[in-house]
Amino acid sequence: MRVGAEAKESRFLRSAVTEENRFQTTADVVAWLSSRVEATCFSVECIPFARSREWQFDDATGNLSHTSGKFFRVEGVRVRTNVGPIPEWDQPIIVQPEFGILGIIVREFDGQLCLLMQAKPQPGSPRPFQLTATVQATRSNFTQVHQGARPHYVEYFLERGRSTVLVDQLQVEQGTAFLWKRNRNMVVEIHEDVPVLDGFRWMSLGQVKQLLRIPNLVSMDAQSVLSCIPLVDQRVHGAADDLEVDVVRHAGADGAALTRFGADVLASMGEMNRSTHSDDAVLSWITDAKCRVGLDVRRLGLRDVRGWRRTEDAIIHEGGRYFRIMAVEAGIDNREVVRWDQPLVTPIEMGLIAFIVKKVEGVLHFLVQRKVEPGNLDIVSVGPTVQCVLGYESRGEPISWPPFMATVVHAPPELVRYACTQSEDGGRFYRVEIECRIVEVGTDDVRDVPDGYLWVTLRQLNELLRFGFVNVEARSLLACLSLI
Amino acid sequence: MRVGAEAKESRFLRSAVTEENRFQTTADVVAWLSSRVEATCFSVECIPFARSREWQFDDATGNLSHTSGKFFRVEGVRVRTNVGPIPEWDQPIIVQPEFGILGIIVREFDGQLCLLMQAKPQPGSPRPFQLTATVQATRSNFTQVHQGARPHYVEYFLERGRSTVLVDQLQVEQGTAFLWKRNRNMVVEIHEDVPVLDGFRWMSLGQVKQLLRIPNLVSMDAQSVLSCIPLVDQRVHGAADDLEVDVVRHAGADGAALTRFGADVLASMGEMNRSTHSDDAVLSWITDAKCRVGLDVRRLGLRDVRGWRRTEDAIIHEGGRYFRIMAVEAGIDNREVVRWDQPLVTPIEMGLIAFIVKKVEGVLHFLVQRKVEPGNLDIVSVGPTVQCVLGYESRGEPISWPPFMATVVHAPPELVRYACTQSEDGGRFYRVEIECRIVEVGTDDVRDVPDGYLWVTLRQLNELLRFGFVNVEARSLLACLSLI
Repeated sequence: MRVGAEAKESRFLRSAVTEENRFQTTADVVAWLSSRVEATCFSVECIPFARSREWQFDDATGNLSHTSGKFFRVEGVRVRTNVGPIPEWDQPIIVQPEFGILGIIVREFDGQLCLLMQAKPQPGSPRPFQLTATVQATRSNFTQVHQGARPHYVEYFLERGRSTVLVDQLQVEQGTAFLWKRNRNMVVEIHEDVPVLDGFRWMSLGQVKQLLRIPNLVSMDAQSVLSCIPLVDQRVHGAADDLEVDVVRHAGADGAALTRFGADVLASMGEMNRSTHSDDAVLSWITDAKCRVGLDVRRLGLRDVRGWRRTEDAIIHEGGRYFRIMAVEAGIDNREVVRWDQPLVTPIEMGLIAFIVKKVEGVLHFLVQRKVEPGNLDIVSVGPTVQCVLGYESRGEPISWPPFMATVVHAPPELVRYACTQSEDGGRFYRVEIECRIVEVGTDDVRDVPDGYLWVTLRQLNELLRFGFVNVEARSLLACLSLI
Repeated sequence: MRVGAEAKESRFLRSAVTEENRFQTTADVVAWLSSRVEATCFSVECIPFARSREWQFDDATGNLSHTSGKFFRVEGVRVRTNVGPIPEWDQPIIVQPEFGILGIIVREFDGQLCLLMQAKPQPGSPRPFQLTATVQATRSNFTQVHQGARPHYVEYFLERGRSTVLVDQLQVEQGTAFLWKRNRNMVVEIHEDVPVLDGFRWMSLGQVKQLLRIPNLVSMDAQSVLSCIPLVDQRVHGAADDLEVDVVRHAGADGAALTRFGADVLASMGEMNRSTHSDDAVLSWITDAKCRVGLDVRRLGLRDVRGWRRTEDAIIHEGGRYFRIMAVEAGIDNREVVRWDQPLVTPIEMGLIAFIVKKVEGVLHFLVQRKVEPGNLDIVSVGPTVQCVLGYESRGEPISWPPFMATVVHAPPELVRYACTQSEDGGRFYRVEIECRIVEVGTDDVRDVPDGYLWVTLRQLNELLRFGFVNVEARSLLACLSLI
């Protein structure tokens, strides 16, 4: 690191191990979010498509699009693959060929990095208000297609020189529902006073991590950005064994202590040459999957999608599976546009995503799978151990459970390191709730893993994440990892 | 690294700093390649398309394809972009939607890693025989579409358990001529005796690097694989300052000495926190480019490509620019198939690729550019400082030279660290020769770089390369970097 500058990793790490800050307690944040609900008039109503004033089906293709031609469209795809139980299927899919911004502003107060988080209403959220990134904007938002105001603070992300960029990565969105959709995940640091607008609050990274233990409180978009924040850099911190010392030194003042699992997480992020598979073996596993997996995705008009049909209220699967696409009318008194309607994706059943983790020679490893989804940019992505969200993996019938589902579902409480419900982005999904779990098994458990699964450390997973190889479900779970 | 195992980086490094080995001198390799020419009957003749027995134009689309439907096709694309001098153009392009294997087998002899290289004839090579990877095979080759023999040694790459994978990365090919084409670049280590077949030789990495100083001797495909071979791992080698000591220790026995430039190269590969831009700033530069550059590539039938036309002998640009596609009939007495014909891409002028490098605070930095080419998989790739190969950048008219061309072309000899002619893959390109240069400027030179250019260290460039962000032209130049 450059002489005189503390590495951002150390600063994020220090912020991650404390809930203390000059602004408010974590309980205050929860109360503040509740107060937003009381102070705001917010309504969401499911409507038949025919009542939509802004969205319409194209006569020729059957595709559903906004009258402006912007935002997104619902089209169809025909998918062929040589892995999984279903070799060919059609499905509706959201097409949004532009990069949105998911961005968090950070600033140092009293020597500690704080994040400027937003209490934001979203039509599809299970909670009226969620804690989101500072900016969560589609390109249509910040180029002001819908005549509303420009999103607050977006200038700190768009104008170089107004901030220091700490994180800036293109990351993929849900591959079951979006076709090749990515957002620009950013964290920028400012060095000047900015007005804290109504609906925004500064908080420590440790506070946000604590709030991820409350169901549906933190948005999936915020989780995506949080997952990109580096806490450890080997070049700065040296070997894993020194890290805990380093953390204690950093966080010492307010007496924060790592949990036992937090210490394991930190050591897994900082391990050097202690992983089960070498970095080259991990990359080879991905390369091999890309060479062996066939994935052919052809775009179709929504009208040509087989096995799905359009009713007055929804686009549905004829077998009653996967998801539905419906329309809502939403109203709010403090959003950019006061009243609007839009399509949303809604699930058939509650989702489940989980990591199985275990210590190998003392180092925590995470079991990942190669995930083949129609929206993948490059054939496969790296997903969590179990992922049942909107796709063909279903929790409903144990007979059709994917590998490791039983281990996750039936884990005794003492092995569950994290369990909470989170929800997909309320701007595209309607009450898509997902049970999120991290389950630690014994070193002698889960010795053999099937084709398509691999044990990796957090250092390895974070490196893959940085370069865009990790899917949004895995990223969301990684964001939930807390050190304290 | 695991206790008891020497890191592959150290082993490759040791092989890179010596020409000594039990098999032959470097001069012997050159003589051996010449003897291959004398011993082989090899003919290449340009023919009119009508004389091709195996390739035909489709009546409906005008596309050129093999009668089997395999290998590759020549189709068209319509390209629109918001960068560069030409906002929209059509061009022919090679479509080959499958991953080939470019693979080198290595084995330890007398404690030193040796590479099994091949003397291979290619119809388009300026030399009848080039030194190539152990295996250079399209999927059609190793699945035996053309009824020939399976490529030698391919089983060590296809069958897990027969070798240890050291490198396994998907890397992009020429983005001007191929649509989204990638090859699997592999290096595998074997631990058993294998017969060294006629046309193959073991040699040290240092020998291959020396042979890269002889015009057109080493194939571009081999260079691509060589560029993926890691020489330094911070986790193994520690900070850059220790590296030279480490090399001397490793290579001490045969007295190999690093050149001054070689020492700078090594230090740039091993630098820790001494780069001008942080790793996050480098990634942000790429992310920003992907968000700001528009690149729309639509596939067309070859018949619908505007500005190009088909003659009896070639597909040509009406303005006489870029490249031509023609047919050759080739014959050889030791290849899998004795006689065949195929289309090849041939250039209008000699190409030029170059890196400008300079020391910043004692650390060698390389000037890269974001490159926008129709075949790019993800909008932009990282290219060398100057790249004039088959595209719109031309060496012909100084008035249309791209940035830094004059610096490269007019560099005084004492600043030229590398200069040699290399040629594109002779399996798709006919005598595409490229002047390759690395020019070191003074620390105070080239202070301001235009939008789209960035100074990075070799450590940073190698990390981007590993994850597939670096184009084949930049990789080829990196392969030419020698330490001795």
